[in-house]
Amino acid sequence: MIHLVGAGPGDPGLITARGLELVRTAEVLVYDRLVSPELVAEARDDAILVPRDAHEQSGVNELLVLLGREGYDVVRLKGGDPFVFGRGGEEALALVEAGLEFEVVPGVSSLSAVPASAGIPVTHRGLSSQVTIASGHDVGALDFDALGRVDGTVVLFMALGNLNAIAAGLIACGRDPQTPAAVVSAGSTPAQQVATAPLAELAEAAGELESPALVVIGDVVKLRQFLQNETRQERMVA
Amino acid sequence: MIHLVGAGPGDPGLITARGLELVRTAEVLVYDRLVSPELVAEARDDAILVPRDAHEQSGVNELLVLLGREGYDVVRLKGGDPFVFGRGGEEALALVEAGLEFEVVPGVSSLSAVPASAGIPVTHRGLSSQVTIASGHDVGALDFDALGRVDGTVVLFMALGNLNAIAAGLIACGRDPQTPAAVVSAGSTPAQQVATAPLAELAEAAGELESPALVVIGDVVKLRQFLQNETRQERMVA
Repeated sequence: MIHLVGAGPGDPGLITARGLELVRTAEVLVYDRLVSPELVAEARDDAILVPRDAHEQSGVNELLVLLGREGYDVVRLKGGDPFVFGRGGEEALALVEAGLEFEVVPGVSSLSAVPASAGIPVTHRGLSSQVTIASGHDVGALDFDALGRVDGTVVLFMALGNLNAIAAGLIACGRDPQTPAAVVSAGSTPAQQVATAPLAELAEAAGELESPALVVIGDVVKLRQFLQNETRQERMVA
Repeated sequence: MIHLVGAGPGDPGLITARGLELVRTAEVLVYDRLVSPELVAEARDDAILVPRDAHEQSGVNELLVLLGREGYDVVRLKGGDPFVFGRGGEEALALVEAGLEFEVVPGVSSLSAVPASAGIPVTHRGLSSQVTIASGHDVGALDFDALGRVDGTVVLFMALGNLNAIAAGLIACGRDPQTPAAVVSAGSTPAQQVATAPLAELAEAAGELESPALVVIGDVVKLRQFLQNETRQERMVA
């Protein structure tokens, strides 16, 4: 059986109880680069460990099919949630096509957990009752016309390298240049860093930050001044 | 210390490892109606249990402040994620105003876990690289102009009572009436029920379903025919 398991946003304590049990009992653990080492260390002493980033996506699909056919109990451990920019659907389809059983165990997605870790609720009564999430790695694929006019909070994955173009596109399509915005790097981990600025100045403010990073745009970013919590929660696996 | 903890979408195994440890050690557990009884049963034998739905939101805020001032270790256990339509921000602000420490422990939000439980990834390469989430309980507050023209997947919370008006509004603002759509009731629990239909016929198809329910609109719903998994995962707390 293949289990597609979400590892959560970075803090190893944010894997689900079910996900952690599966990691601890798996015969094979295929894990993403962004999964915390503490979670990989929870695997059985005799577990086969496969770092996913050594393989193309098609190779990962083939490997999962091969392992499934051999009857291994496999955990495919993915950062965040398998079905939110996690390409879990592609891996699941490959298993279905091969006639293999699988289970999806959702994870805490960065989309709300990373802003939360910076003191930013993605929804808040009176400020935002709508959230739009998109991937910023391909600026040409972004629907600026819709994103510029949409109400509420915009959350962008993989947008760090394109901040100038994204801010310009959103402003050209109707977003106020003064919209509060934030970049959260390594969210929910001890290495977390946050930059906040009006949308027009976000790229400059985020100059030093590194991937992985999440971008949050909208009035909810204003709440960070009240809700940011310098006491980081302990890194722990229960 | 007050811990605002997300319980996840329904399946008790989907609470985070850190959240579960906090539930097991809390002196006071203030919990939402939608939190699974299995999680409430994880509290200490001598824990004070407070069902949240007996109180107005302002009363909950006051209660948390009172308990925090008395030095209790309190878990405020909320369905899904505290900061995704969970009003966690309001409770956190009340604690900040009272000068009290708090911690947010994110949860698995229904927004992706409930569709996943029905075999629907909210993003999928070639079908959707954008997700917009909104609350459907107040149709007048919905920005149909933006929701009708936005690309990708739309996920609506608390929309079951307004399906006809919502579908009509989206179609009037540009969504194809044939857009695949689904309603998932009691997602991720053994009581889960799913209805799928083109957007224009969704209200009729969902006629028998009950709250809590999540609405998913977009081409990703087509993947359910391949990815739905009738073997429900076990309900378990690790």
